Amino acid sequence: MMNQTARKSILDLRENSTVAYLGSSDSEGYPAIRAMLVLEHDALRTQYFSTNTSSGKVTELLANPKASVYYCRPEAYEGVLFIGEMEVCHDQPTKDFLWREGFERYYPEGVTDPDYCVLKFTAKRGRIYGGPNKMEFGIDEVE
Amino acid sequence: MMNQTARKSILDLRENSTVAYLGSSDSEGYPAIRAMLVLEHDALRTQYFSTNTSSGKVTELLANPKASVYYCRPEAYEGVLFIGEMEVCHDQPTKDFLWREGFERYYPEGVTDPDYCVLKFTAKRGRIYGGPNKMEFGIDEVE
Repeated sequence: MMNQTARKSILDLRENSTVAYLGSSDSEGYPAIRAMLVLEHDALRTQYFSTNTSSGKVTELLANPKASVYYCRPEAYEGVLFIGEMEVCHDQPTKDFLWREGFERYYPEGVTDPDYCVLKFTAKRGRIYGGPNKMEFGIDEVE
Repeated sequence: MMNQTARKSILDLRENSTVAYLGSSDSEGYPAIRAMLVLEHDALRTQYFSTNTSSGKVTELLANPKASVYYCRPEAYEGVLFIGEMEVCHDQPTKDFLWREGFERYYPEGVTDPDYCVLKFTAKRGRIYGGPNKMEFGIDEVE
């Protein structure tokens, strides 16, 4: 079972991150990485991001939902990687839930813009890095 | 052909990064991400990183050399992703080349430490992100 120090590190890393790094696989099986805006910190198991329906990552994730989400504090050599599956959501309740003031900049038609969609990430396991140390965990250990 | 503005953005992003994000695939085909220290900026096609031979990423990259290296300035919504293959190098000239003062902290036996190895990344293509814009490029266009 995970100790409380490790659990607190994971929560702190996520809570203090404004940016997360999203990992996916492209059509040739190469890993892809993109910085994503962190919009909410409510849960570790389920994490939501907003994106354009027309974006390349939506195409990649529909073809291969295996994904990861990484938070880090590089200057402290700390990081946590969540591994799981990504779902692309177009349903209005989910779109309403994640909508933020100013999103019109990215989605000019507003909260019902068909080019606005939500990436719903469900983590099943993870790894925490702290300096040279690494620990694997199941999502049940941290939620 | 890539324009000079895009090319300059790529060079600037790399030149000003102290941290890069390394993408690989784990044994179950999930993308993995780790922050890596940037040690040199000499070339875009070939990029070197140091790591512990015993680390999980070495195991992953030997099993599947498909890799990516991402540099970004999240606050400016700028990023560049390089896609290619990773080689794990144990030869002494490559280890000598990348060795830096203070590395004894990670590799106590020094530059010949068997737990010190070099990750040599050879990029073949890439993507640059700037706000909502994205452009794919071949490595020949930027080197």
